[in-house]
Amino acid sequence: MDETLLMIPGPTRVTPRVLKAMSENIVNHRSAIFGKFLTETSEMISDIFRTTNKSYILTGSGTAAMEAAIVNILEPGDKILNVVGGKFGERFSNIVEAFGGESKRIEVEWGKAANPNDIKEALEEDENIKAVTVVHNETSTGVANPIKEIGKILDDYDALYIVDTVSSLGGAEVDVDGYNIDICVTGSQKCLAAPPGLAAITLSDDAWNVVDNTNSRCYYLDLKKYRKTSSMEPPETPYTPAVSLVYALHEALKVVKEEGLENRIKRHELAAEATRNAIKALGLELFPDEEVSSTTVTAVKLPEGVTDAELRGTMRNKYHVELAGGQDHLKGKIFRIGHMGNITHRELITTFSALEMTLRELGFDVEMGVGVAAIADTYLPQKL
Amino acid sequence: MDETLLMIPGPTRVTPRVLKAMSENIVNHRSAIFGKFLTETSEMISDIFRTTNKSYILTGSGTAAMEAAIVNILEPGDKILNVVGGKFGERFSNIVEAFGGESKRIEVEWGKAANPNDIKEALEEDENIKAVTVVHNETSTGVANPIKEIGKILDDYDALYIVDTVSSLGGAEVDVDGYNIDICVTGSQKCLAAPPGLAAITLSDDAWNVVDNTNSRCYYLDLKKYRKTSSMEPPETPYTPAVSLVYALHEALKVVKEEGLENRIKRHELAAEATRNAIKALGLELFPDEEVSSTTVTAVKLPEGVTDAELRGTMRNKYHVELAGGQDHLKGKIFRIGHMGNITHRELITTFSALEMTLRELGFDVEMGVGVAAIADTYLPQKL
Repeated sequence: MDETLLMIPGPTRVTPRVLKAMSENIVNHRSAIFGKFLTETSEMISDIFRTTNKSYILTGSGTAAMEAAIVNILEPGDKILNVVGGKFGERFSNIVEAFGGESKRIEVEWGKAANPNDIKEALEEDENIKAVTVVHNETSTGVANPIKEIGKILDDYDALYIVDTVSSLGGAEVDVDGYNIDICVTGSQKCLAAPPGLAAITLSDDAWNVVDNTNSRCYYLDLKKYRKTSSMEPPETPYTPAVSLVYALHEALKVVKEEGLENRIKRHELAAEATRNAIKALGLELFPDEEVSSTTVTAVKLPEGVTDAELRGTMRNKYHVELAGGQDHLKGKIFRIGHMGNITHRELITTFSALEMTLRELGFDVEMGVGVAAIADTYLPQKL
Repeated sequence: MDETLLMIPGPTRVTPRVLKAMSENIVNHRSAIFGKFLTETSEMISDIFRTTNKSYILTGSGTAAMEAAIVNILEPGDKILNVVGGKFGERFSNIVEAFGGESKRIEVEWGKAANPNDIKEALEEDENIKAVTVVHNETSTGVANPIKEIGKILDDYDALYIVDTVSSLGGAEVDVDGYNIDICVTGSQKCLAAPPGLAAITLSDDAWNVVDNTNSRCYYLDLKKYRKTSSMEPPETPYTPAVSLVYALHEALKVVKEEGLENRIKRHELAAEATRNAIKALGLELFPDEEVSSTTVTAVKLPEGVTDAELRGTMRNKYHVELAGGQDHLKGKIFRIGHMGNITHRELITTFSALEMTLRELGFDVEMGVGVAAIADTYLPQKL
């Protein structure tokens, strides 16, 4: 197929072990053997979410889970507070509006993190806000939002707390129960390093209470059906799930368990730190404020005189390293390095060596080796 | 994993060739190489649909595609005529109601086929019907509905013609353009013999015209976004697709092409005929009227004195052949034999030998070998 090194913020590289699990025989999706797989997979996801609540596997992208988080609690006219500081924050707002809700937006400058006090103020101003959405890791800007601090504030209000951890779960601190999160969603193809196509969602009792009292408009993503079928004997999904992808996710989650969630998060933090250090060593500029920069994706300003097409094109075609570009109004202004999933110093050294060569070739003044050295310098004092 | 022979109406057995394709490296879903895969897959689906219209691949089950067919053309209060003669006909009706539409139902006794004249009458009675839904192959009852004849009638009316070919496409005659079908949906895991998790949908110009003039409530399944991104360079999907499953479906569709669609349909027809002959030889009774019995799944009445749990449990646990039970009010009254996808006389002979032994064991008077002989007798005069 293609040996390009994926350094994009998802889908991430999937190991042969997980790919192999995916190619097992298809079984009946309503059999005991599959029910066991499904339950184990959901339970492992709940462990990573750090919640005692049940999680549900959806066949669809992370966006399907974001939609599920909204449509199950929404009636036309309901007010949802959307914190918007990037493409995915915007997506929550768009979903609310697509289904007839009223999106009240807190606009955050792209590259900055949300300010928990702004959320407090908005909730004080309007007591009819039914839920607040926050994107933990804004993949489009490389910003990590303070979901723990926002959770502390939301504890004093009735509004549900909905968090998108699609590109953070497994690569950054997430504590659903500890942060008072009511609905949390994630995807298979980011830090969990499974193939794309599955998403997961978990709901608190408060969230279920709202779901049960909402005249919602949904069918494929009707979570009440997932709750019901997950308790059947054998447990199943309401509609045929992507059986092979469940095998793969199951195996990928076993890998997370074997590595240990804390170790995995530390590995992501270290990769992010090394990436930032290498970027600075090369004389490039981070796009987000460094103190809120994500542990799973680093956004970098394109240096003057270098176009996105040249930089990413050379990286891809000559050095077989795939980076991501900017999205929406950041197109052509930033590029993004994903360091999520199975990323170690090896992939970063490859990436930065290629980046140095690419920059030199494109006429940007760079001293060869300084990026690679910064990676090594960051990893060296650590116990690998 | 599990070597049980899947004789259920989907998911069906997937060949090692297709499983192998699925385990290729994950690539960037917005890359040229994936765009090529996506376009080729969509084009092969359009060929099998027999339409010159574009098809779109959705990450989700067949139900997601059924929902997409409805929500993109529906505003609250819109009237949709749903032909309901089984669980999947019912599903279309439920989706219409879930999204605030008015479902006008033509009830067809389960086990019978829809009568095209009933649809004509309903359309004559009410000129505000926006669309008519028909399930081609009603998986729950084993009935094939006359979608060609219904299409002839619908040609005289403005209502859109929506057809579910989830469990028929690739195993029964479907001619989207020839039958005047406006929206046709299918799934990956039935006669196309790819793993579950993908669905496909195609729309006529008339359907697109309605979509473009409908203030629809949808997001993940908003087909306008799929149309837009499919024309980008490189072509892509609006949200991260199940990349590995697209590889698998691409390979499975190549297999369909190599076999030849006509040959594949004939193979399904022959398997269905052999199955019916064997059922009758064993002294069992078909559930649907024989002349409308499906080419991809055969529904059989449970013989008196034999329970579903005993019959399917013995088949599964002792002989490793998985059959399907009845759904909804047919639970415990029928069992179903799926013969879709890669099914040949070999699998049928195994199945019927196991069924003979199971029936004998459960005290049903059966002459050993007569079912297997009926299979052979059906295949023997054919050029295999």
